[in-house]
Amino acid sequence: MPKVVRFGISLEKNLLGKFDRLIREKNYTNRSEAFRDLIREDLVKAEWKKNKEIVGAITLIYDHHKRELVNKLMDIQHDFGELIISSQHIHLDHNNCLEIIAVKGFSKEAQKLADSLKSVKGVKHGTLSLSTTGKDI
Amino acid sequence: MPKVVRFGISLEKNLLGKFDRLIREKNYTNRSEAFRDLIREDLVKAEWKKNKEIVGAITLIYDHHKRELVNKLMDIQHDFGELIISSQHIHLDHNNCLEIIAVKGFSKEAQKLADSLKSVKGVKHGTLSLSTTGKDI
Amino acid sequence: MPKVVRFGISLEKNLLGKFDRLIREKNYTNRSEAFRDLIREDLVKAEWKKNKEIVGAITLIYDHHKRELVNKLMDIQHDFGELIISSQHIHLDHNNCLEIIAVKGFSKEAQKLADSLKSVKGVKHGTLSLSTTGKDI
Amino acid sequence: MPKVVRFGISLEKNLLGKFDRLIREKNYTNRSEAFRDLIREDLVKAEWKKNKEIVGAITLIYDHHKRELVNKLMDIQHDFGELIISSQHIHLDHNNCLEIIAVKGFSKEAQKLADSLKSVKGVKHGTLSLSTTGKDI
Repeated sequence: MPKVVRFGISLEKNLLGKFDRLIREKNYTNRSEAFRDLIREDLVKAEWKKNKEIVGAITLIYDHHKRELVNKLMDIQHDFGELIISSQHIHLDHNNCLEIIAVKGFSKEAQKLADSLKSVKGVKHGTLSLSTTGKDI
Repeated sequence: MPKVVRFGISLEKNLLGKFDRLIREKNYTNRSEAFRDLIREDLVKAEWKKNKEIVGAITLIYDHHKRELVNKLMDIQHDFGELIISSQHIHLDHNNCLEIIAVKGFSKEAQKLADSLKSVKGVKHGTLSLSTTGKDI
Repeated sequence: MPKVVRFGISLEKNLLGKFDRLIREKNYTNRSEAFRDLIREDLVKAEWKKNKEIVGAITLIYDHHKRELVNKLMDIQHDFGELIISSQHIHLDHNNCLEIIAVKGFSKEAQKLADSLKSVKGVKHGTLSLSTTGKDI
Repeated sequence: MPKVVRFGISLEKNLLGKFDRLIREKNYTNRSEAFRDLIREDLVKAEWKKNKEIVGAITLIYDHHKRELVNKLMDIQHDFGELIISSQHIHLDHNNCLEIIAVKGFSKEAQKLADSLKSVKGVKHGTLSLSTTGKDI
């Protein structure tokens, strides 16, 4: 049996209250269990971010009327040309676009590209999903 | 100033060790800070999963040689026809495919679709990224 | 047997020479046969262009560095929002982009969209392929 | 001024009648003019089909319920892996799919891929649009 240790954590009361409600909804029986899962998930994510070969998808939501935005997104993508396979563009409504960029390469580069795109002024939301190339599974 | 409370957590020593190394790499000065960010992120994710209008991307990695798999993925997608805008398919190598499905609709439906697709035998990895429709931001 | 009629055609000698070489390569035994196929193809195309429900793909090749071009293409696409399902964008090299726009709607609208996009200054080449919605076949 | 020659063509009366109606709709003043344009278009197409570097889009309409069809299309695409950049898949209705495959490579290979895909039993319609890589324009 793995050795268990106990330690103390300080949190804003308000935040802890919300967290307690959430873990009750998720049917955890105590906080330690919930923390264990959060930590595991975080370690897995950290593992992905190590510089290994991945495929991934970057999603961006933006208002295409912001002129410079569209050009900047396009320029950044061409700068990371080798990394990007293709992208899918969906006109959500008269203003908003969803762009999903398929990438293949090293995770650090993918992270860098995602960060560059998300930091363009006017991008409303961005995500990066990393996945395996499938070769080793 | 928000009121801060202190409480105890029990964790496997091994897991705590890994977590401590990770938060050092991330430049946190103590565990409480790191936990605070994990909790906040978890609350945001929980918020997304409430049944509201979202757009999103589901990524799937699979070996297209598994015959029934391809047909099952296709059937499931047609069953969720209203939710799916279009998908992007990339032939990674002779065996592996990356499929990125753009969805627009309610988050619970998106979650259900993602779960159905990921549970098909032979899917190696799957992710669901949720994002805003851009309307309220 | 269908009634055959004979009539005269005037053409630049140079153009006729090229056409004669082409139909020899295609193994036609005489010009009439080659013309018959050209006419049939043209009639089929004209049929497509009548205002019926179609799906289609518009391809565009352009240099993304031409700033106004990118914005104009985006605006036109949002104006035809109902017609466009999604588009696929491929960064061919540091300058050139291939954009493939999937459309579903009435053929006259698709033609109008394609014409609007192709006429944007800086678009190097554009095509419109029309196809059936699959319902009646 | 280019030298003009006159020659005779034989056609089914019925077909000629349809063609005459079509060219009137298109505002041609005589048949020779209409033929001239048809020939020019055909020469341009023939030029594309020579084995040079192109980008293109293949569209396919099919019923995804035909099991073997989906697998065959997938296999053929993986066999032409180098040629295909990515594809866009749209679920038109419960039965019909539109697939748009972006290709980059040599025109003869693209033609071969398109022919292979279109000949799969159950594909309702297929098109191949060829375009320039943009480099020389």
